[in-house]
Amino acid sequence: MKIDAGRFLEDLDKLRSFGASGVGKGVVRPAYSEADMAARAWLTSRMIEAGLRVQTDAMGNLFGLSEGPSLLLGSHSDSQPEGGWLDGALGVIAALEVARAAREAGGSAVSVVSFQDEEGRFGVTTGSAVWSGHLAQDQADLLCDHSGVALADARRVVASTGAVDPSQFTGFVEMHIEQGPVLDSAGERIGVVSDIVGIRDMKITFEGQQNHAGTTPMHLRKDAFQAVSRFNSELNERLRNVVTPSTVWTVGHVSLHPNASSIVPGRAVFSMQWRDGDAERLGRMEAIIRSLANEIAEGMGMAVSFGPLLGLEPVAMDRGLREALELSAAKHAPDQWRVMPSGALHDATNVSRLMPVAMLFVPSIDGISHAFEEDTDEADLVTGVRVLAEAVASLK
Amino acid sequence: MKIDAGRFLEDLDKLRSFGASGVGKGVVRPAYSEADMAARAWLTSRMIEAGLRVQTDAMGNLFGLSEGPSLLLGSHSDSQPEGGWLDGALGVIAALEVARAAREAGGSAVSVVSFQDEEGRFGVTTGSAVWSGHLAQDQADLLCDHSGVALADARRVVASTGAVDPSQFTGFVEMHIEQGPVLDSAGERIGVVSDIVGIRDMKITFEGQQNHAGTTPMHLRKDAFQAVSRFNSELNERLRNVVTPSTVWTVGHVSLHPNASSIVPGRAVFSMQWRDGDAERLGRMEAIIRSLANEIAEGMGMAVSFGPLLGLEPVAMDRGLREALELSAAKHAPDQWRVMPSGALHDATNVSRLMPVAMLFVPSIDGISHAFEEDTDEADLVTGVRVLAEAVASLK
Repeated sequence: MKIDAGRFLEDLDKLRSFGASGVGKGVVRPAYSEADMAARAWLTSRMIEAGLRVQTDAMGNLFGLSEGPSLLLGSHSDSQPEGGWLDGALGVIAALEVARAAREAGGSAVSVVSFQDEEGRFGVTTGSAVWSGHLAQDQADLLCDHSGVALADARRVVASTGAVDPSQFTGFVEMHIEQGPVLDSAGERIGVVSDIVGIRDMKITFEGQQNHAGTTPMHLRKDAFQAVSRFNSELNERLRNVVTPSTVWTVGHVSLHPNASSIVPGRAVFSMQWRDGDAERLGRMEAIIRSLANEIAEGMGMAVSFGPLLGLEPVAMDRGLREALELSAAKHAPDQWRVMPSGALHDATNVSRLMPVAMLFVPSIDGISHAFEEDTDEADLVTGVRVLAEAVASLK
Repeated sequence: MKIDAGRFLEDLDKLRSFGASGVGKGVVRPAYSEADMAARAWLTSRMIEAGLRVQTDAMGNLFGLSEGPSLLLGSHSDSQPEGGWLDGALGVIAALEVARAAREAGGSAVSVVSFQDEEGRFGVTTGSAVWSGHLAQDQADLLCDHSGVALADARRVVASTGAVDPSQFTGFVEMHIEQGPVLDSAGERIGVVSDIVGIRDMKITFEGQQNHAGTTPMHLRKDAFQAVSRFNSELNERLRNVVTPSTVWTVGHVSLHPNASSIVPGRAVFSMQWRDGDAERLGRMEAIIRSLANEIAEGMGMAVSFGPLLGLEPVAMDRGLREALELSAAKHAPDQWRVMPSGALHDATNVSRLMPVAMLFVPSIDGISHAFEEDTDEADLVTGVRVLAEAVASLK
């Protein structure tokens, strides 16, 4: 099949016009906002023009369905509160273009989806979580956004035409920007995803003794921020023999109490998050994290406590789908592609509960994403959609 | 002269009734509040009963004046937003009792003061700062509290009877709780202050690169919180050869941007505060702090910047006044007193611009202050006022 690069880029540009904002190619199109709903109305018309039957479920997940069993392609069209023009949008428009090209070639049956609230106005990958059965609709409805609006109220703008049966799909392929610097810094064009890494996330609290910063001698202090600092510095060394080059760990959130320059911090709560493609490694890291925190607390005469461990298991991509993407990448981007894990979460994680899934990355310039500055060379966008189309054709 | 311990403790207890709040002996009596103004009205009547002439200046500093040249005793009667019953109040009621006892003995001329807003609803030691000429009234009037009320408006409740000429006072002695654990943990009763330490305070900012915590490999990160953690851990070692056992340094406030568990912190701003009685040592510490921060930023490929250096110089206590306190302490608390620096700021810092000053400490149980739980044994309170009275008598 033959994709139409001009039509593809034009549609991608048109989608950006819904919520275009901020500097450069920035987009503000959070789930269920006016811009999001207008974008979905336009997508509906483009799906119908492509000969697809449109169905919207109660969450607002928008499907363009091919007759009979089909391969599902897509991603999401909602954005971060301050997002870029490609995160999610690229996968939806690429799916639309491949569905059109497939139909024009009289080839594979391809359906298209734009999931709702991938960016987590209400949770994380909320629309696909509900569709996949990972999260019950009545539980999801209780989730509130930062201004206190419940999902149940926000989704009243959705004109649902009924549930979409997942059994009609033979698999799911999501094309996405990498959202990291690996491809761009290596000068490569395509990444075929091996697995979506698992995540562990836990709040850790050091409880020391709040004191006057002028009158409390150093040797009588139990400074909770000293404990966090030591933990964050020493953890890198402790993990060294357990991790791989693609393992990551982050302290991204810190809250001191009372957080005043003249008071020795009595309590420090911080987020500890780590990601890896191997569930066993995630477990070994957890053991090191807990024992280091305990050791530091004991050494400084403090208490330490651990919040609930939140986690998502690593998801391996389907071997057959992935192989089709690799063969296509080798043809369209010879010596300029690699197999790589996805460090970010995607709707594909949820969809993997229902069917075989695979993912395809194109580079993010300077690795920037979740920001107005997010961008990718047009040539790479077109290479990506060609790799996707050829892989889909080969699965026929 | 002979102090009346019962009358002293009764007045101290009565003062607590203005704004009594929270658990235990807690007090909520911020500057210019209804509780504060009612307490000052009661203090006025007690000063008059003690034969003192009352005068209130435009800031609301309340003086009970003896005729002719006199020694000024006192502290402040405003409290922290959630304060204890002794911080400031002890020094005011001790002054009142010694003034009464001196008068009854036909001895030394003693005046009494309760400064306004020592606890800094509007600044830091605001009332004595204005009285001492360190801060101009029209500048002070522009200061706002946390809810946006200007000092100029807050002080409209003050019925001023005119300025108070400092030249009538031969010196100033302030009795106070230690607000730290040194005396309590050593089982001692009295601290004679050698000097009020100097303070240096500076915001430091590490500027790295904000990134996705899932897709950014560890070796490509510029994590601003890693820089803060390393700085806070290594500083202790770097300062070791420069500091004394009474030197203190604190990172009490930290602010990460964007402070989210899934994002590598791109910017970290934190407070660096250090205190010592020796101005030269404060300077040597500053050089170490700046060079360590620069070194860490350079090693991690980040930028570092330093905010303005705020500082208060160390203030040595007057030799003659201090000697009188030492002799009295040796008599009333033999082998249970020490000479020590004050790590906290006090009104005496400002008053030292006008006249010789000295300070006297009694223990804080468990070192707790600026909290409802603040307390001191009654026996120690009485020992303190006896040491003060005997020292005053000896200065005659």
